[in-house]
Amino acid sequence: MKSITGSAAERLLEEKEIERIVHDYAYYLDMNQPEKMIDLFVDDCEVSYAPNFGAIGIEAYKKTLDGIGTFFTGTSHHVSGVVIDWVNDTEVNVRAIVLAIHRYAKEGPDGILYGQYHDVVVKRDGKWKFRRRILKTTMAADYHVRAFNPIGRAL
Amino acid sequence: MKSITGSAAERLLEEKEIERIVHDYAYYLDMNQPEKMIDLFVDDCEVSYAPNFGAIGIEAYKKTLDGIGTFFTGTSHHVSGVVIDWVNDTEVNVRAIVLAIHRYAKEGPDGILYGQYHDVVVKRDGKWKFRRRILKTTMAADYHVRAFNPIGRAL
Amino acid sequence: MKSITGSAAERLLEEKEIERIVHDYAYYLDMNQPEKMIDLFVDDCEVSYAPNFGAIGIEAYKKTLDGIGTFFTGTSHHVSGVVIDWVNDTEVNVRAIVLAIHRYAKEGPDGILYGQYHDVVVKRDGKWKFRRRILKTTMAADYHVRAFNPIGRAL
Repeated sequence: MKSITGSAAERLLEEKEIERIVHDYAYYLDMNQPEKMIDLFVDDCEVSYAPNFGAIGIEAYKKTLDGIGTFFTGTSHHVSGVVIDWVNDTEVNVRAIVLAIHRYAKEGPDGILYGQYHDVVVKRDGKWKFRRRILKTTMAADYHVRAFNPIGRAL
Repeated sequence: MKSITGSAAERLLEEKEIERIVHDYAYYLDMNQPEKMIDLFVDDCEVSYAPNFGAIGIEAYKKTLDGIGTFFTGTSHHVSGVVIDWVNDTEVNVRAIVLAIHRYAKEGPDGILYGQYHDVVVKRDGKWKFRRRILKTTMAADYHVRAFNPIGRAL
Repeated sequence: MKSITGSAAERLLEEKEIERIVHDYAYYLDMNQPEKMIDLFVDDCEVSYAPNFGAIGIEAYKKTLDGIGTFFTGTSHHVSGVVIDWVNDTEVNVRAIVLAIHRYAKEGPDGILYGQYHDVVVKRDGKWKFRRRILKTTMAADYHVRAFNPIGRAL
């Protein structure tokens, strides 16, 4: 069995904090608390939900989220398959799988998104935050967003 | 990098056990083994699935679960987004996200529940068990339960 | 609080690696990269997706996966509820819950599978790999596979 160094155990603790922001993002989104989502991102963040739908910098991201909640009467984000690759002690790459159900304020069936989050998460001032979050779309059903960042599935 | 104390590493081990009962609950529910679900709760448990649908105390909870399995030919509970907040060394608050599909014994489409579990989990006699489990409903589709504990989504 | 031994902390690290292959399997499947899936299995692997649909040995498994991607235009596997039971230092039993959506190349609604993975994962030459993977089916909707390994839900 491999030896456990102090740093290996430390990284397990850090990974808990990293996973936490991944899950808090989904929770605050479903709770329609964009101001709490904003807190999970660094000032120089980059977010892409789709081509031409995203933000560079926290001020632009605030505008992206503004009013998004009223578009839906409810959403439910189910995030699983979280894996973390360490770049260095203050930066990781995160991949997660998401199933997101959107109930529209207007009439119509629920919009369903099947996707992947590809994140860069960094530690600044002792807190892990999203530096970059890219949503890639595996497929969708009855969903209002028509342009997607593809996952790059092999043909 | 922050220093890791013995107690921090201990809590990682404890959290594995806490997550385990969250996942075992879902598994035993889908396996229709209510007696194994009961084992995951303390005697003075409180459970609420909806207003006027729940139990106070293990005997009442046994009655709540009694015969529930025959109402469905199958259920599938997908629990993700588990996060744990420590209250003290023997008590934690747990939040988890659930997608639950219910296939009814009677005719009709599958009932789908999108929700959140909000739990108090305690350690007694060396075992972590549910002290309180509240199911809050984000939304539902074709579901037989009409009254819900709301998640409190911001308007 | 229970004492933490070096070996307990080591196992937490090992469990991260074990969970990783569970999540990588789902990811590579959705990315249609069967050659990367193959790498997650030992040569003497046993795989069962359903009665008469599986493989014994890595060469047979390669054939099972061959061309599977072209049957679908997309799939999305959502794996949650991963729990690990240790058999010894180089072998564990793993249970996980899966929701899998299949979009067919031919016309028709998405096929949905609700299931459980029951795995034996072993450590060989320092790497954790699947020794056995059994998919059990809780239920399905519009799905092309008609025979199932049952989960054994109590009546």
